[in-house]
Amino acid sequence: MNLQHDRRLLGIDFGGTKMAIGIGDADGRLLISERVPTRAARGARQALARALDLAQKLVTDTGGTLHAAGIASPGVIRDDGIDLAPNVPGWEQLRLAEAVRDHLGITRVQVANDLNAAALAELDRGALRDADPGLVIGLGTGVAAAITVNGAVIPGHRGAAGEIAYAVSGPGWPTSAEARLEADFSGRALDELADRLNLPGGAAGLCTAARSPGPARDALMPRIDELARHVVTCCLLLDPKRVVLVGGVARDELVRDLLIERLARALPYPPEVVLSTFAQDAALLGSLSLAAQA
Amino acid sequence: MNLQHDRRLLGIDFGGTKMAIGIGDADGRLLISERVPTRAARGARQALARALDLAQKLVTDTGGTLHAAGIASPGVIRDDGIDLAPNVPGWEQLRLAEAVRDHLGITRVQVANDLNAAALAELDRGALRDADPGLVIGLGTGVAAAITVNGAVIPGHRGAAGEIAYAVSGPGWPTSAEARLEADFSGRALDELADRLNLPGGAAGLCTAARSPGPARDALMPRIDELARHVVTCCLLLDPKRVVLVGGVARDELVRDLLIERLARALPYPPEVVLSTFAQDAALLGSLSLAAQA
Repeated sequence: MNLQHDRRLLGIDFGGTKMAIGIGDADGRLLISERVPTRAARGARQALARALDLAQKLVTDTGGTLHAAGIASPGVIRDDGIDLAPNVPGWEQLRLAEAVRDHLGITRVQVANDLNAAALAELDRGALRDADPGLVIGLGTGVAAAITVNGAVIPGHRGAAGEIAYAVSGPGWPTSAEARLEADFSGRALDELADRLNLPGGAAGLCTAARSPGPARDALMPRIDELARHVVTCCLLLDPKRVVLVGGVARDELVRDLLIERLARALPYPPEVVLSTFAQDAALLGSLSLAAQA
Repeated sequence: MNLQHDRRLLGIDFGGTKMAIGIGDADGRLLISERVPTRAARGARQALARALDLAQKLVTDTGGTLHAAGIASPGVIRDDGIDLAPNVPGWEQLRLAEAVRDHLGITRVQVANDLNAAALAELDRGALRDADPGLVIGLGTGVAAAITVNGAVIPGHRGAAGEIAYAVSGPGWPTSAEARLEADFSGRALDELADRLNLPGGAAGLCTAARSPGPARDALMPRIDELARHVVTCCLLLDPKRVVLVGGVARDELVRDLLIERLARALPYPPEVVLSTFAQDAALLGSLSLAAQA
């Protein structure tokens, strides 16, 4: 009897809008997954509790024994909390690894930044397998990046590499927290812009409306410019072979085309820019890779 | 008899304003060096010829046999030329390795980007020995950067990592080559600004005048803002433990203080920022390290 066959890995990708929970086999292959809303406005604890209950249910459904878990979260992961994860109230106070260990009764738990988890999936089995250096740009509820060099995700000195949400945007030097890239270009910022323009469907609705000339397009353009300005600087610094776009907003073709056009115009050596082939699952698959390493 | 003792290494650091030529022992220790003006306006060939003649003279002076050479040059080094090195007319057409081999009769020649050479010196024996990741910001005739990860300089996919001179500056999206960081903040740009303000002493004179309120300060401030904006994005992407400033303009205390203050205000985790301890010799020492590896 090979117990290895019954070993299950758990991956959870916590996002500001959705949470994905997946169960993998011992090699990290995804067997089953579910996606549920985060309900960020109701706070961090209910989101975590629902995710862990669903995880327990899925483990039972696949009929194996839970061996290890990998968790992807926005922000900078510390042992006693999380920094720079403002999109879900209370998230920064969570001790994710501890909560997962206590709730699911396992000891092997690894937590990583969600974009770094996505980059790990791209390195292991995605668009960065054959591209070095690699740059991942995440356009989801927030905006973030991850870098890969010589086959490894580079976490940075404090685990904060890729936190481009805090890039300084607009003219002059900021005196407020508003003058940040995240306030200009992120799923959340585009949702708010859609509301202000009375457009249905949030960020996605705004991007659809922006395909034709009009207020939506006029409002979106300077925000794409600002995003592109900082992605250009990231590309100049790293000279990546390939840029992989992940996240819900990146799936909009107009956003991708406008960004790619700007990179091509500004960069002496424009990198290849591709959409992740994992649809929404890059960070979830990365969290299974984390679990396999745990 | 130990021939090793007579082995000499040559290092040359070509800059847009000055060229440094150094002779090192077999371990890459600098024995003697000289610094001469590039005279960029007179073109690339005369600069290269003068540098190689001086190199030959210094080798003879130190009484050894030339074993290998390392060359640091602005731009992106290719076998048949150099890209993105606009500050010396004709420089992009040079085949540096070939010229050094032919002129000095040696086979071991290694050519690298000057900021990457400086980063190598900082890794080997400078401020990045114990700091990972590391970011080098070069404020000389141009503006450029270099990154170090896990004890190595990261050249990028096309050898163009760190070419932040091409960062998009100013409001809106550029339609001209003018809207680049190099046109806002570089030794050359500050020289031109000093001329326009009728200030003597070029960039250095401008920075001195800017210590007091007045037109020099008013003109310098938005340019520091623009530099800081892009260095902030670089720091967010890489999360370096330490930033090392090199180059003539970086030696101005006001420029350093204003940059450091802006990084501290904008970054969630400000890195240490230090001035290279090598004065003007970071890239020259790096070119000796290159020679030792050649």
